[in-house]
Amino acid sequence: VAPDELEIIDRYFRPLAGEGAFGLLDDAGALAVPAGMDLVVSTDMIAAGMHFLPDDPPDLVARKALRVNLSDIAAKGARPLAYLLGLGLGVGGREDAAWLAAFADGLRTDQALFAMSLLGGDTIDVAAGPVIAVTAFGTVEAGRMVHRAGGRPDDLLFVSGTIGASAAGLALLRGEEGPWADLAEAERTALVRRYRLPQPRVALAPALVAFASAAMDVSDGLVGDCDKLCAASGCGAAIAAERVPLPEGLSPARDAKLVARLLTAGDDYEILAAIPPRNAATFGAAAAESGIAVAEIGRLVAPRGMIEVTLHGAPLALASRAFVHHLSERGRE
Amino acid sequence: VAPDELEIIDRYFRPLAGEGAFGLLDDAGALAVPAGMDLVVSTDMIAAGMHFLPDDPPDLVARKALRVNLSDIAAKGARPLAYLLGLGLGVGGREDAAWLAAFADGLRTDQALFAMSLLGGDTIDVAAGPVIAVTAFGTVEAGRMVHRAGGRPDDLLFVSGTIGASAAGLALLRGEEGPWADLAEAERTALVRRYRLPQPRVALAPALVAFASAAMDVSDGLVGDCDKLCAASGCGAAIAAERVPLPEGLSPARDAKLVARLLTAGDDYEILAAIPPRNAATFGAAAAESGIAVAEIGRLVAPRGMIEVTLHGAPLALASRAFVHHLSERGRE
Repeated sequence: VAPDELEIIDRYFRPLAGEGAFGLLDDAGALAVPAGMDLVVSTDMIAAGMHFLPDDPPDLVARKALRVNLSDIAAKGARPLAYLLGLGLGVGGREDAAWLAAFADGLRTDQALFAMSLLGGDTIDVAAGPVIAVTAFGTVEAGRMVHRAGGRPDDLLFVSGTIGASAAGLALLRGEEGPWADLAEAERTALVRRYRLPQPRVALAPALVAFASAAMDVSDGLVGDCDKLCAASGCGAAIAAERVPLPEGLSPARDAKLVARLLTAGDDYEILAAIPPRNAATFGAAAAESGIAVAEIGRLVAPRGMIEVTLHGAPLALASRAFVHHLSERGRE
Repeated sequence: VAPDELEIIDRYFRPLAGEGAFGLLDDAGALAVPAGMDLVVSTDMIAAGMHFLPDDPPDLVARKALRVNLSDIAAKGARPLAYLLGLGLGVGGREDAAWLAAFADGLRTDQALFAMSLLGGDTIDVAAGPVIAVTAFGTVEAGRMVHRAGGRPDDLLFVSGTIGASAAGLALLRGEEGPWADLAEAERTALVRRYRLPQPRVALAPALVAFASAAMDVSDGLVGDCDKLCAASGCGAAIAAERVPLPEGLSPARDAKLVARLLTAGDDYEILAAIPPRNAATFGAAAAESGIAVAEIGRLVAPRGMIEVTLHGAPLALASRAFVHHLSERGRE
């Protein structure tokens, strides 16, 4: 451990440590799982230049690292409990004391918002960073975790929030042409903010446990992720693209090209849920009560692997179905 | 998720998934903690150029990533249960299909050796990799986790195995001058192997639970890590350096300079334990029964923060007390 690593832990991370973390003064943390609860665990990494831009505000980078994991926890119907933080800082990188202080502030903010605490972690040097690996823990009533695999034909498909705001925000940050460029400044700022700060649908978890047959977090494009839910559930799906809520400013520009783009873009961190028809009304009511808008966008169908996406009844042409987290040209042999 | 990421998961990681991993086809894993057990969790990252060399064999890189975490689990008296794998692959890096296949083989080997399974993970692109983040889970009888903080004055200090083999192996890989360079080839190979493949002392865990007042994993230099155990326990320590077991080939070369170097080098992944005097004989017997050599190297003393390291009664000069995981010159402002 480098002296600077110890200093980083002392100054920035120790104040965030909670129950079972032993003040980050031990080799490991201890997790007490309440009786009658199952522990749900998820690990997602984010890296500069792939999942965030190197000059994104550090507090938002920290919160994104947490929230992409909380989105998975929420999709399984679980309540956040604690997290582990792996932080790789680039040698010669720009992550100075001010960056670290802001990063820790971001963690503190979201710990309070989501009632979770830091259980442990590791800070290392990497050749190019930052690379952040969060492991998030949540609890759900024993045996009630919501899986991807429980969907059945005729279940209705619901999605939370809006789809495409984050992708439009990233397009703005990259200076890409598109209808987002014509928006008022406040709307553009909101889209960029959404890219930088996902909104994990933690409050929706109880409604998922009560009413969903299957659910997943939408992070790599709605259509491609729906593929995955269908593959796990052994069925297909029909999505009516005109029902998918787009960000407010972009709704008037809704045409086939824009819809196709946003339905296959990434970083939504919304929840896609399969709801048996008999539960649809109560799920909608429970979602409304939780303060999270949900929209019915289609249904599961029997033919395995068939994902039909239509716009006002006509097939929607999709260039690709899923999003790759890579902000520049990629290459791996 | 990139198609190649899905392919990597399908081909290499899905066969490693165990109970609660849902075939890596869900957003999260579920951990069932047996009644009467506490869950112990640790996360350690390793990065190319910092904790391993870019051309180290991929199976050993994978096993090192697991083992540095298992070493923490063992030091807390816990038994391995499962792990999460975060894998960051460098864009344009050398990690092709053959590398990934060997990496997965390494994981498979150690899963069998340590009776643990893959619970979930994430594969991402990073600017420079590989960067590997493992979260390891272990179980220990409720309330019996061994902490760093339990040591008391007069407790005897024991260390497992030998100290310095890994540092000597790294010195060989870097072509550094030193007594390691004069060894026979078989001995040099063994030292390099030890750098590449740590030996977590998992079998020692029950003896620690039964007899240790405090324990920790030695990963950043014996002296510096002893500092940490003492700080947590609110005491000091006296170490008789001549009692610290060095690797066989280097023992004849034992002089103050070599001893000082090896006692402050890193990557040992041995266990430092404080044992109340009344337990010393039974701890030694239990360790012998587990097949792991332990040596008494000193004791805890009352003065807080005083770490006295002597060689045959004379103070040992130490240039630095701890090891920094960084294989070239470092710089962070």
